Formats: sequence, structure tokens, C-alpha cells
Amino acid sequence: MSLKTREDYFNSLRRLNSRLFMFGEQVEDVVDHPIVRPAANSVAATYELAQRPEYGDLLTASSHLTGERINRFTHIHRSRDDLIKKIRMLRLLGQKTATCFQRCAGMDALNTTSAVTFEIDREFGTDYHQRFNAFLSYVQKEDLVCSAAMTDPKGDRRLTPSQQKNLDSYLRVVDETANGIVVRGAKMHITGALDAHEIIVLPTRAMRPEDRDYAVACAIPSDSKGISYVYGRQSCDTRKLAGGEIAVGNPGFGGQEALIVFDDVFVPWERVFMRGEHQFCSRVVELFGAYHRSSYGGCKSGVGDVLIGAAALVADYQGTSGAAHIRDKLVEMTHLNETLYACGVACSAEGYELPSGGYLVNQLLANVCKLHVGRFPFEMIRLAQDIAGGLVVTLPSERDYKHPELSRLLQGYLQGVPEIATESRVRILRLLENMTLGTGAVGYLTESLHGAGSPQAQRIMIEREANLEHKKQLARNIARIGQ
Amino acid sequence: MSLKTREDYFNSLRRLNSRLFMFGEQVEDVVDHPIVRPAANSVAATYELAQRPEYGDLLTASSHLTGERINRFTHIHRSRDDLIKKIRMLRLLGQKTATCFQRCAGMDALNTTSAVTFEIDREFGTDYHQRFNAFLSYVQKEDLVCSAAMTDPKGDRRLTPSQQKNLDSYLRVVDETANGIVVRGAKMHITGALDAHEIIVLPTRAMRPEDRDYAVACAIPSDSKGISYVYGRQSCDTRKLAGGEIAVGNPGFGGQEALIVFDDVFVPWERVFMRGEHQFCSRVVELFGAYHRSSYGGCKSGVGDVLIGAAALVADYQGTSGAAHIRDKLVEMTHLNETLYACGVACSAEGYELPSGGYLVNQLLANVCKLHVGRFPFEMIRLAQDIAGGLVVTLPSERDYKHPELSRLLQGYLQGVPEIATESRVRILRLLENMTLGTGAVGYLTESLHGAGSPQAQRIMIEREANLEHKKQLARNIARIGQ
Amino acid sequence: MSLKTREDYFNSLRRLNSRLFMFGEQVEDVVDHPIVRPAANSVAATYELAQRPEYGDLLTASSHLTGERINRFTHIHRSRDDLIKKIRMLRLLGQKTATCFQRCAGMDALNTTSAVTFEIDREFGTDYHQRFNAFLSYVQKEDLVCSAAMTDPKGDRRLTPSQQKNLDSYLRVVDETANGIVVRGAKMHITGALDAHEIIVLPTRAMRPEDRDYAVACAIPSDSKGISYVYGRQSCDTRKLAGGEIAVGNPGFGGQEALIVFDDVFVPWERVFMRGEHQFCSRVVELFGAYHRSSYGGCKSGVGDVLIGAAALVADYQGTSGAAHIRDKLVEMTHLNETLYACGVACSAEGYELPSGGYLVNQLLANVCKLHVGRFPFEMIRLAQDIAGGLVVTLPSERDYKHPELSRLLQGYLQGVPEIATESRVRILRLLENMTLGTGAVGYLTESLHGAGSPQAQRIMIEREANLEHKKQLARNIARIGQ
Amino acid sequence: MSLKTREDYFNSLRRLNSRLFMFGEQVEDVVDHPIVRPAANSVAATYELAQRPEYGDLLTASSHLTGERINRFTHIHRSRDDLIKKIRMLRLLGQKTATCFQRCAGMDALNTTSAVTFEIDREFGTDYHQRFNAFLSYVQKEDLVCSAAMTDPKGDRRLTPSQQKNLDSYLRVVDETANGIVVRGAKMHITGALDAHEIIVLPTRAMRPEDRDYAVACAIPSDSKGISYVYGRQSCDTRKLAGGEIAVGNPGFGGQEALIVFDDVFVPWERVFMRGEHQFCSRVVELFGAYHRSSYGGCKSGVGDVLIGAAALVADYQGTSGAAHIRDKLVEMTHLNETLYACGVACSAEGYELPSGGYLVNQLLANVCKLHVGRFPFEMIRLAQDIAGGLVVTLPSERDYKHPELSRLLQGYLQGVPEIATESRVRILRLLENMTLGTGAVGYLTESLHGAGSPQAQRIMIEREANLEHKKQLARNIARIGQ
Repeated sequence: MSLKTREDYFNSLRRLNSRLFMFGEQVEDVVDHPIVRPAANSVAATYELAQRPEYGDLLTASSHLTGERINRFTHIHRSRDDLIKKIRMLRLLGQKTATCFQRCAGMDALNTTSAVTFEIDREFGTDYHQRFNAFLSYVQKEDLVCSAAMTDPKGDRRLTPSQQKNLDSYLRVVDETANGIVVRGAKMHITGALDAHEIIVLPTRAMRPEDRDYAVACAIPSDSKGISYVYGRQSCDTRKLAGGEIAVGNPGFGGQEALIVFDDVFVPWERVFMRGEHQFCSRVVELFGAYHRSSYGGCKSGVGDVLIGAAALVADYQGTSGAAHIRDKLVEMTHLNETLYACGVACSAEGYELPSGGYLVNQLLANVCKLHVGRFPFEMIRLAQDIAGGLVVTLPSERDYKHPELSRLLQGYLQGVPEIATESRVRILRLLENMTLGTGAVGYLTESLHGAGSPQAQRIMIEREANLEHKKQLARNIARIGQ
Repeated sequence: MSLKTREDYFNSLRRLNSRLFMFGEQVEDVVDHPIVRPAANSVAATYELAQRPEYGDLLTASSHLTGERINRFTHIHRSRDDLIKKIRMLRLLGQKTATCFQRCAGMDALNTTSAVTFEIDREFGTDYHQRFNAFLSYVQKEDLVCSAAMTDPKGDRRLTPSQQKNLDSYLRVVDETANGIVVRGAKMHITGALDAHEIIVLPTRAMRPEDRDYAVACAIPSDSKGISYVYGRQSCDTRKLAGGEIAVGNPGFGGQEALIVFDDVFVPWERVFMRGEHQFCSRVVELFGAYHRSSYGGCKSGVGDVLIGAAALVADYQGTSGAAHIRDKLVEMTHLNETLYACGVACSAEGYELPSGGYLVNQLLANVCKLHVGRFPFEMIRLAQDIAGGLVVTLPSERDYKHPELSRLLQGYLQGVPEIATESRVRILRLLENMTLGTGAVGYLTESLHGAGSPQAQRIMIEREANLEHKKQLARNIARIGQ
Repeated sequence: MSLKTREDYFNSLRRLNSRLFMFGEQVEDVVDHPIVRPAANSVAATYELAQRPEYGDLLTASSHLTGERINRFTHIHRSRDDLIKKIRMLRLLGQKTATCFQRCAGMDALNTTSAVTFEIDREFGTDYHQRFNAFLSYVQKEDLVCSAAMTDPKGDRRLTPSQQKNLDSYLRVVDETANGIVVRGAKMHITGALDAHEIIVLPTRAMRPEDRDYAVACAIPSDSKGISYVYGRQSCDTRKLAGGEIAVGNPGFGGQEALIVFDDVFVPWERVFMRGEHQFCSRVVELFGAYHRSSYGGCKSGVGDVLIGAAALVADYQGTSGAAHIRDKLVEMTHLNETLYACGVACSAEGYELPSGGYLVNQLLANVCKLHVGRFPFEMIRLAQDIAGGLVVTLPSERDYKHPELSRLLQGYLQGVPEIATESRVRILRLLENMTLGTGAVGYLTESLHGAGSPQAQRIMIEREANLEHKKQLARNIARIGQ
Repeated sequence: MSLKTREDYFNSLRRLNSRLFMFGEQVEDVVDHPIVRPAANSVAATYELAQRPEYGDLLTASSHLTGERINRFTHIHRSRDDLIKKIRMLRLLGQKTATCFQRCAGMDALNTTSAVTFEIDREFGTDYHQRFNAFLSYVQKEDLVCSAAMTDPKGDRRLTPSQQKNLDSYLRVVDETANGIVVRGAKMHITGALDAHEIIVLPTRAMRPEDRDYAVACAIPSDSKGISYVYGRQSCDTRKLAGGEIAVGNPGFGGQEALIVFDDVFVPWERVFMRGEHQFCSRVVELFGAYHRSSYGGCKSGVGDVLIGAAALVADYQGTSGAAHIRDKLVEMTHLNETLYACGVACSAEGYELPSGGYLVNQLLANVCKLHVGRFPFEMIRLAQDIAGGLVVTLPSERDYKHPELSRLLQGYLQGVPEIATESRVRILRLLENMTLGTGAVGYLTESLHGAGSPQAQRIMIEREANLEHKKQLARNIARIGQ
């Protein structure tokens, strides 16, 4: 039994010696820092729920390598049913955390690397897949969290990696020995970077022969020598420093991104999964994109469930939940939210087996899924704020509300329907602030846009997968036009 | 082997003695009337494709009653896989006909009646399910087409059936004998009415005890005594009378609705599946709604494929297919169209077994599916017309184009890129007219709105299925609000 | 007093000797042909209303050439107030006809030509403006209708006029003498072509020096030698041939487009307003685009008023007008419709004086106006059909409804609320069919997309007029970024 | 000359003795508090620009009481031209501050009170209008800022003021003497409360006879005895406490709302403008709504200009500004933004004179304007974030960027195109964060939804102003339906 507990997880994080910079200073006791901790809590939920019998079918799977019961986040999908369960698992976790829980990107990176190493080996006779499986066994056995380090800084977007003025604008191999390689560069927006045991480095775009040194995939322990993290600031992040649980809106959970600097980091060969096979970089992007874009149909619909629930509650608390327009807005939010989930399920139900034996989602539908994810949450937060009213941005601070002189006045003036405690209303308004403007919005809005590739990347894939020639032929048949 | 051929089907229609009124006259040789024939052709495609090996898995199934190979349109779904195959079958047929092919409503009515008769029997100890299965065996064995006669005229929408001034505003039982019942009333918008062998009558709304006589379900041969049809006019319908295949846009296929008058029609008891059990009327509506709303995710995405193909072709023919904005519009059309399909697949993949042993789609997602179906096609025809240009509504008539004096001039002035015959461009523009304004638009737009219930009906179901209380609890957990 | 009556107008049309082809035959008595007549009726409304005192302020103006009271459709706008009154006049006419009334394009062409001839003269010392004013005086005095012949066939869109394989893909000068020029080619989608006394020919795009012969503007009597018209087929056009006024939905009025063939037509110099000054072709397009795009804010909001009214009536007739979702849909339709009008008014209120003394609308806002016009009507017909229900496409024909045997039955089954005659409900449903799928939809939907230039043309102008550099500087100032 | 300078304004604020609570403590030196100061800076811009000759026509007007040159924010509009200039002035200020500048609500309250006092006097023979004019003269002469205190806490939304359990849920008169009245209660979300010299109290909803004591309007010096302010927390507000100008995004300007507590505040009769005339409360709401909803067409389009500029800049800085999809998104943003402005201009151009001699905007169009303001900014921030990329939420802090060890690395990794300083890119990304998630988003998103009434309030007004009966008659005329 490879499943670790929540406590195991925190202990393992505390053993890491990661080098984190935040607000201009290096942080000690990373995992217990009040800004970092909520993010770790979200990841911890993936351990905790896996222990609970009622979620066992969703949160765990049987390793195709060992047959052991493993956390599904470390699993290589072997069937359509696996793909669908993944979506349901992610929705569940979105519901429990109301934020990004940061462990999907690693899962999607594992599945991508599993498939692509197999395909590279088939083409070039290399042994990457075997190396990868050894690494995977370790991850499954120790129930580890991996981050997916994919997005490079990119510098001037008009230029390819090797054309950049700053050659480190994309991560690259700067040295190679008998024992391994040395990589230099940075990876940006790395979700859950500080909560991961391993970094899986993958290329971020198609490469050409001259970009050969940029065609690199590997796994690196997250506190390796040469690795530094710079914390990505989030809207309202410092509220977590002020103590108290009301002001932050979501006191338990959070998401987190960091910039990772790779300052000449050594990687032994057994952890290198691609080194120069530039022909397969676009395949990495395509597979990771498909897996990760489908994942969003699960996690974001789970977060959306909380948003809908919060909007419904605030209407209850204010006495407006019977109004036709309020009910209609909740219906519209539900409609949009379920569409995300439906697309996640559909691309899974239409999944297929890869040469490696892993299962991939339908790529067209996975991209359709993600394109909606980049649209609907923005409409949903608009509707949620519409239902909530202006207080979501004008509420006095928690401390005013507890000030001796003000307390009685505010208690009365902030009360909605008499049967609900004013504090409950305040808490739900702060949660709505968190999800629509605050730390929660970082994940629910902006990450929904750009995670797993920006909308234009999905449009390009949709065009590629649309099979327009087939559709043209259908139209010719109907209109009776000969070829 | 119960599968009939296309020719069998036409012969069986010719043996019917249906009483059809159109443009103020009774029509002889109904099936060969130029306005009716394209609709029959669409239904015939469901026979023809079932004969083709490559489509056998989609178009046929194994009867749960007899184990015989039957047309899937007469099948009671027994698994999630059945539900998904139904969606794929419908998409295929939409692609082949570019219109409503009219056989789904009957299939969805069979599945609904199968489930509800079982549930009524369980409650009241009746034997409806056995009667229904006998009828179903006959339908499967003879490979028959059923229409679903559900929507009543409704009169004043503010009143229930028994409150109406005109008591026939909803179909009802006006007499009952030892042998059977006599029904009177009308059913409106009946898709494929003239192409069906059997009419399945179902109640259209929830009923109360005083509406008991309106709570009736039964099967009636389509040319029974007392049955008359009044043809529902369609935009551009009379173009089919003018001969020539260009002007109609879609020369092969069409859809069709009729008003059915039931002028005291006798129904023997063995064909009566509900008689007075008003408590189950809402269940009928709910189940038929769920089945039929999911069906739209298949058929309309198939029709949408043709629309996308036609738009892509017209761009090719005019030399604009390389423009970024044209490509982007095709991507957007694809995105919207695949969303319909994804929702149809998802509600199937999340289906579940009913007490009767049949399988039902996830109702929440089925309603989400249909709500999109009432929106996206309108945006898709806007994009298609945008790509096509104004000629879609200003093209000279086919006969002008063949006029001796004009022919040479129009040939030149209507030419797009030199390598494409002008007539091909004309044909595809007429197909676009058909699908965006003409007979095709009737099914693609208006029926997409109102078939299987209007958008508000879906919103009511979404509200009912949204489980807001669960979502509120999720939000309370996150905000740490005690109950 | 130059204002002619409705009767004068019809008489003048009857004196024309236009050569019209329709359905493969040449038409005699063009104006009284049942397909053409409703279009003439719409134009006639511009004469009739000008006679009515209550509309005098909107429908007439004082000529800047003579000070005479003239029809505003022949007026050169001399103030912002003129521009705003134009919008109001167009909305009024849309309300009275529920269709395109076809006289705006000529008005907008007159204003464009007035401005550009002045500017060409200023640049090249020509005397076009004086020629134009002589022509304009004649138009004003005789109260004539002009069509604007702008859009060329264009052939292969990837090529410029002189690059086309078919050199007649754009209209051009093929001969020039001391007395005038000879033009050859065709103009497409010409609104109101058969209801006009004069054709104003204008170039349709920017031209280069090698396209010099395509840079031509002139005025041509509509029944000149060498001119032929080919009728542009409309959805449901032949219903007008069947007699009866119910089936057509809008029995009084219609719009109309035709293809005009110019088979070596002679134009005397005094009617030539541009001949080779290719530098000013883009100016023509820009000015005509601005004027005509703003016009749509008036006419289409007027048509939209009728659509909203029809939707509100059908709800009354069916007993649904009290439902919250129906009321909300009417509000949404009103919101969208008024936005079109608001943009029309705003670009007028922000208008400015041109060198010629005429007034031009604000171009940015005029393009914003038209871009909405290409979107909102599609959403409005969706909402209208949603309110109306499926009968809008399944209603039996007028003649069935009058059939002796069926009449009584249909009268009952098609009745909505008891206090409204069934025929009223039928009429309003047919009007909705007309406006959403039939002849009315041609103008309300497709022409809204493509008239005055397709959406992409508006986007190009919006980009050009957006003044991004100014906005960037605003952002730099706020972010305190030095240049 | 009544125009005060920016310095005058700050000095006058410093003389106020306002009682502000923030984060549980009372604040000294309110105006210079780092959280409050940016809001005061925004108001100060209304003084500063009024001094600049190039803006004199927009920022100043001639008092209708004295003929003196006054700041337009204290002016009673006397013409359509005044109304249009108001919109332009607001757009200008939005461009200069990128936030809410807080002085419009007072202007709109002055105009409302001017009109309604006149109408009450006409009905009841009172002398409110004269009292109001005396107060207005003082405001104009001293160039004062007024806040508009309208929104009450409202308690349980299902109940009227006098039905509430907490009778102070709406502000009311608790005592009345020969000298004046005493009011108790609170007003919420009061924009610019801490930057105002005077509070104009107005009722927030229609009242019934039993709510008579809640029907009160008056003016109160902002630091009166009994007045307390509680600061409304904003997303990211405490970043302003950390020093440095980069992290805040918009270092110069901000908006601000506060809750005002009226703890038995005395108001002398000469400052009371309504006392019990409950019949006129809905008139107040309607007029203030119309004025203020139109104002949003100006200010928010000005803020939108900055957002568009910032998005265009970030594309320049990253090398993506040539991509077709980026250009298209900027066009779409411009299209949406100009629509807001167009609606603001249009309702002004269609304004009309009130009985008091003041001018009111067209109410239908003003509500259309505001309804768009509650939609489009949410789409605009989505597009802006789409263009900007994920860095907008993952950027390291300003201090990391200046950390000795990290500086060189981050300088390189955060650089976009080589010709732009990394800091410029960082600044513009922080501005985008500010406007889409931070303090700027409070005004640009949430206030756009709820300021001047929430969307449903606009829909109710649109329904009321839509004149559906007129539109139904238009439809009847077209369909030839007799009454």
C-alpha cells in the first residue's frame, strides 16, 4: 500500500530544503509560512481524501507497473473509465478546496512523459521509457507530488529559442557528461512548485534542429542544488499575514505559482527523458495540452460549484433567493459550470489508447473544454457578484467589525435576514471576494485562461483537429457537387 | 434479422392510407409528393445506413426482448455504451442529411414508455409494461417508424387542461368501452408524422386529478380512422414544387412537421399504456425530455458539420479561406458545434440504469445540452452567413442562370476563384440559404429552440437538478460557517 | 415645393422602361409585379410620410443649394442635428415597413459623392463638385430615388481588379470620348435597384494606379440602354405569387436586391464624378461606409421595434405575457435594439464638418454601430422565436385554415387566449416567420451583416480609428513609464 | 471665479475633522493616509484639470444661478450640450486616473435634488427648491465635493423599511424640532465619502405612507457631529502600505467607498430638501438612476481606454502585437468600450428639459447604457488578461526584483522584447493586475455592476420605458390586425 497520509505529506515537505524568495527575502520553514501553507493544505487534501473509503474509487487506482493501490494523481490512465474518474476526482477536489489544488499538472506531465518516451524509443531506439518507468515507480511507491515545469520565460515572442538575444530565455542543456546533463534557465508560473517533491521539466513549444539543446525533458528533486524559487504574488496575498480567518475568505486553502530558476542544475542520465529529440517537442506540447486541458473541465467545475453555492447562500442571507432573476442567474451559472464538466467527461469518454498503452482524451473535445474554461468563469463571477451586491467590495474589515464601539452598529447594519448571524453573511461575502477578485480569482480566472496554454493555443488545436476536409465533403454530398 | 431496406420502407409508406391536407387540398400519393418526399428520404437514410457494414455497430443493436439484430431506432438502451452510440448514430445521420431525419422522437418515446409503464405497474399493479413490450416487439420485428405525438395545442397557457374553454385544447379520452378508449384532440408540431407507421401518444405536461382524462398514452397506426394530418408550412417549402435541384439547396433531404387531428379515434386496450394515472404524466415529460434533449447533441452537431463544411467551401470558392478572420470563424463554429456533441456524449457517459432495466442519460447534463442547442446554432448561422457574404440572399434564380442571354454574363459575374465551376459556388450558396433561412433552418434553428421543450423548460429542469443545497454546504465548509 | 406624392412616385416608376429578369424570364410591368410591388411600397412610404405634417421635421429638410423644402433622402447633411434627424427618420420608416425601405443607400451615396468630389477638385483642380451639384439639384427638384451601385462581383478575392482573370469582375471604363465614357461590368446586391430612378455608381474598394480604369463614379438613369437587372431571389419570395395576405406575413412591404449588368453603358461627362483618381477610391469607401453604417442604427432599430411588438403580441395571444422569463426576454430584445439606435445617435451627435461643408458622422462610432447591427438581430430573432414557440414554423397554410372541413377544427386548435381571434394569432406568427426566416429576414439578418460592408470591414476601421497610440500613452502615464 | 486649485482642495480636506475607522482603529490625518490618499488624488484631478485651458470647456460651466464660471461637477445641466459635455468630461477623467474619481455621484445628486425639490414644491407648495438653491450656490461658490448617500443597509430585502425588525435598516428621521430634524441610520458603499465636504442624503427606494419618516433628503457637512465612517476594504488595499510604487499598479490614483454611520445627526431646516413626501421617493430614485447610469458611459469608457492601452502596450513589450488574434482582441475591446461611450452620448443627445429647467437624459437609453456597463468590463478584463498572459498573476514582488542576488536573473527572465526595459513590462503588468483583480477592479468591475443600481434595476426601468404598447401597435399595423 503506497498511499501516504496528510501528516506524512507535511513531514516530507518539512524535510525539503527548498530555497524560496518572497518579498525580497529568503523564507525559512517554507511549508509553514502563512502565505504558502494554504497551498500545501490544498495538495494535502489529495492525500486525505484518498484515505477515505467513500472516495477510494476516485482517488486511488491500481498501478499498471506493480498492481499496487496508488494515488490516482500518480497513475497512468489505462482506460476511458480511468479518464472519466480523473475528471470526477478533480471536481471533487475543486469542491473541497475552492481553489487550484496543484497536483494535476504533475499527473498530466507523468502521463505525457510516459507516452512520449515510448514513442521516442520506438523512433530512435533509445531507452527513455524504461528510465521513466523507474522514476514513475518511485513516485508511485512514495506517493510523491510532481510539479510540471513547462513554460519558459520566452523573451521576445517573435523569435525561436536559439534566436533570442538572451539564450537563457528558454531552459537548455549547457553541459553534458558521462553521468548526466546540466541545465540552465527558468520556468515560469509553476503551479504548486513549493508543494512538490519532484520537478518534471518539459519543453514548452515545437523546436527545430537548431534548438536541439532546448529539447530536454527530465525529473529533478525539488530542492536540488541550483534550484531557487521566486514566489508569484497574488491578489490579496498579504491578507494571510494579518491573522484571523474571515478576511481571507477561504481560510483553509489556496493555490500558488512560482518562478523556478535553474542555475546550472545537474541531472543524472537516469532522470533524463528527452535530450535533443526536437522532433518530439510538439508531441509533448500536444499531449500535455490535451491531458491538462481536459483536467480543467473537472477542477474548475468543482470550484464553480462552490461559487454557485456561495452565491445561492448570499441570496438566502439577504432575502433575495426567491426573486425570479436571482434564480435565473443561479441556473445560468449552473448551466455554464456543467458545460465545463460535460466537456471534460466527453473528451474522456471519447478517449483512445496510445501506442504506449496509456489512454489519451479526445484532443478536439479537450481543447473545446479548455476554451470554455477560459470564458465561462468570467461570466460566472459576474453573475456571482451581481447576486451578491456591492458589499462584496465595500465590506469593512474584520477588525472594524470587532471594534468595541463599532461592533454593535456594524452587527446591525450588516445583518441581512434576521435568522442568519451577521458573521455568516460577512464570511460568505469574503469568500465571494476571494473567488472573484482575491487569491481564489488568480486560479479561477487567470489560470483558467492561461493554464495548459492560452485560448489561442486551443484555437490552433481546434483548427487542426476539426477535419475541415471531411466536413467539406459532407457539404458537397448534400449540395451534389462533384469533386 | 428484422432490418428492412430503404425500398421496403418506401413500399410500406405507399401502403398507408393517410389523410393529409396541404395548401387547402387533400394530397394523394403522400410519400411521392415533392414537398413530402425529401422528408421521407431522410427517414429512409436510417434504413439504408443500417444495411451498411461500416455503420452496423452504430445503426443496429441487439433487442433486449428477442436478442434479434434490430435498428437502433427501435432499441431500448441497456447501457451507457448504448446511450453514447445513439449520440454518434444521430451525428452521422445529421451529417448525411443536413436536416432533421425525424426518427429520434419515436425512439425516445419508446424508451420513455418502456420505463414509465414499468413504474406505473410497480405503483398500481397494472399491466401496461407487458402491453408495451408486445407493441415494441412488433415495432422491432417490422422495423417501424414511430412518431411521438406529445405537444397539445394548449389554448390559453395560463390554464390547465380541464380549465380550458375549449376542452379539446389537450387531447383526452372521450369514451371508454370494454375493448378500448376513444381519444379526441390534436397534437402539434409532430415531427415526421407523414413518414411514420405508428403514432405514440404521450401527455405533454404534469396533470392533476381533475385532468385525469388527459392522462393518456397509447399507440395508434398512423392511418387509423379519424386521423387527419395538416402539413406545417416551412420557409421556402414551395421551391420544391418548381423542379430543378439547385434552388432548394438540399435537393435530397428535408424535415417535416404536421398537426395531427384525432377526431374520436378508437384505441384497443392492448395499445393503451396509461389511462388516468395522472401522477405519472410529469415522469413522462421528464424522461422524454431527458432522452430527447440529449438526442439533439447528436443530430444538430451532425447538421452543424455540414454547415461548417459549406462555410469552409464557400470561402475556398471565393478565395478567402486563407484570411485569419475566416479561419477564426470556422474555429468558432467548430468550437460551438463540438460543445453540443460533448454535452450529448457526457450526459450519456453519466447515464444510469432505471428500475425497468433501461438506461437513462444524466438529466442535468441532458438539459444543459439542449439549452446550448437553443443558442449556438443561431450564432453558427450568423458566422456562416458572415463567411458566405451577401450573395446568400441575393443570388439570381437557377432559371436566370440558365437563361440563354444571361447565362454567359452570370457565369462570369458569379464566378469566384477560376478553378471552381460557378455552378458549384451557386450550389453551396443555396445550401447555405437552405440551412440559414430556408427549409433547413426550420429544423436547425427553430426546432433546435423548441423541440423537446423550449429553453425555459430546460432552465426549470436545470434548477431542479442543480442540487443547490449541496453546493451551499460546500461553500459553508470553505467559509467555515456552521449550519 | 419639390415633394412628390406617393402617386407621383408610382407613376414615375411606371414610366421607366427597365429591363428585369426574374426566374428566367423578362418581366413586364415591373413595378406592379407581385414580387416587386411590396418593395416599391416601402420606398413609397418615404414619399407618403414626407407629406404628413407630424413627420415633416424628420422627413424633409431645406436644400443647401436652393433653400427649397426637399425630402430628407435627397439632402446633404449640414449639421449634427441633420445627422440625428436622419437616424430618427430611418427608425420611423423601419417601424412603418418592418423591412428595408431602400432609399438610404442613395442618400448616403449622394452625401459621399458631394464630399469626395469637393476633395478631388481641391486636389486636382477638376470640376466634379459642380457637376455633382447640378445632378443633385435635379434629384432634389424631382424628388428622385437613387440606388447606390457599389459592390462589384470581385471574382477571386485574393486579386486586385486588374489582376483578375475576368477583367469585368469589377466595373470599369472601357471607352472614353469627348462626350463621355462607356462602362462595363456588374454591381451586385443593389438594394432597391428596381425602385430607383437613378443609379449612382461608386468604386467598392481602394485602388492602385494600375486599377485606374476601375476608379470611376457616375450617375446613370436606371433604364438606360445597356442596363439589365437580375432579380435576387429571397427566402419565401414566391409566397407573394400565391395571393392572400396572411401567408406572406408582411403583406404591405418588402425589400429587394438586384444584380445590375452594365453592358457598355454610355455616361456623358456631366454625370461623371470620378474618372481615374484612384487615390480617392478609399475615401469613397470610407465615407460611404461611415454614412451607411450609421444609417443601420436607425432603420434596423425601427424594424426591431416591430419584431419586439410582434413578440409581445404573440405572448399576449398565447397567455404567456405575464411570465417572468417572457418579460425578461422582451427586456433583453429592447436592450439590444436600443443599443443599435444609441450608436446611430451617438455617431451623429459626435459628427463634424467636412471640407465640403457637409457633415460626417464620427467614424469610429459608426463602425461600432454597424458591428452591433451584424450581431444583435440574430440574437433578437432567437429571442422572438423563443417567445413565439414552434408554431412559427409549423403553422398550416392559410388555405388549410380556410378549408371547409378543416376550418372549424383549426380555428379551435390554433386559438390561444379566448378573447383574441385565431386569425390574429396566425397573422402575427406569419409576421414573425417573415422577419426571422422569410423575406423580412433577408433584410433584417443577412443585410444587417453585409450591408455597408461585412463585419471584418468594420473591425478594420475600428482598428484604424481606435488611436491605440493615445491609449498606450494614457496607460504609460498611469503606470509611470517614461517613453 | 469660483474654481479652486488642487492645493485648495487638499487644504480644505485637511481642515475637516472626519471620524474614520479602518482595520479596527480610528485614523488620524485621514487625507494623508496612504490608503486614502490615492482616492483624494483622483478627486483632486477634477480641480486640476479645470484649471487647464484646454479642458476648460469640458470641466467648467456657467452657473445658471449666478452666471459665474464654476466647476462642471457642481453644475445643473441646462441643455443637451451640457449633458454631452458631462460625458466627455467623465471620459477624460477616467483616462487620467484609471479609476473611479468619485465626484460624479455628488453632481448627479445635485441635479436630482434640483429637479425633485422643484416638483415637490409644485405639488405641495413647499419651499424646498429655494433652500436647495441656497445650498447649491454655496457648493458652487466654494467649489465643494459632495458625496451622494443613497444606499441603505436594507436588512431583509423582502421587507419595506417600516417592516424591518431593525428599524434603522433604512435611514430615518428620529426627531424633529423647530430648528431641524435628527436622522439616524447608515448609508453604504458611499463613493468618495472621505474626500467630500458635504453629504447629500437621498432615499434609496419608493416609499409608502407608513414609511414617511424614511422619506428624507438633506445636506450634511461631512464632519458633522454623529457622523462616522468605516472604510470599505478593497482587494489588494494593503499593498499601498508597503511603500514603493510598482506593486500597486496605479501608484497615483484610486477609488474608495465607505459606510457612513449617522448616529442621531442634527440637520437644520434650511438643509432639508424632503421630509415625509414619500410620493416623491421613487422620483428621486428614477432621476438619480438616470443621471448616474448615463455617467457610467463616460467614466468607465475612460478607464477602459487605459485598459486597452495597457493591453496594447503589454503586447508590444512581449513581441505579440502583430499577431492577428491579438489585434482582433484589441479591436473587440475597443468595440465594447466605445459602445459604453456611445450609449452615454446618445442618452444625452436625446435629453430633454424638466419642469425645473434642468435637463435630463433619455431614461431608456441611460438604462441601456448602464446595463452594458455591468457586462462589457468583465469581457474586457478577460480579453486584457488573455493578451497579457499568466504573468499578470505570477509576477514576483517588486522587492524580489530588487534583491541583489535575484535582480540580475529576474531582469533577464522577465525581459520581453530587448528594446523595452524589464521594469516597464513589470509596471504595465502590475497595472493590469490592478485593473483586473486589484483596487482598480473594485471600481471597474463590481462598481460597474452595482453602482447607480444593480442590473435588475436597469431591466425594470427598460421594461417601464420600452413602450411595448406602441410597438405592439406597429406590429398590428404591419400584420393588418384590427384592434
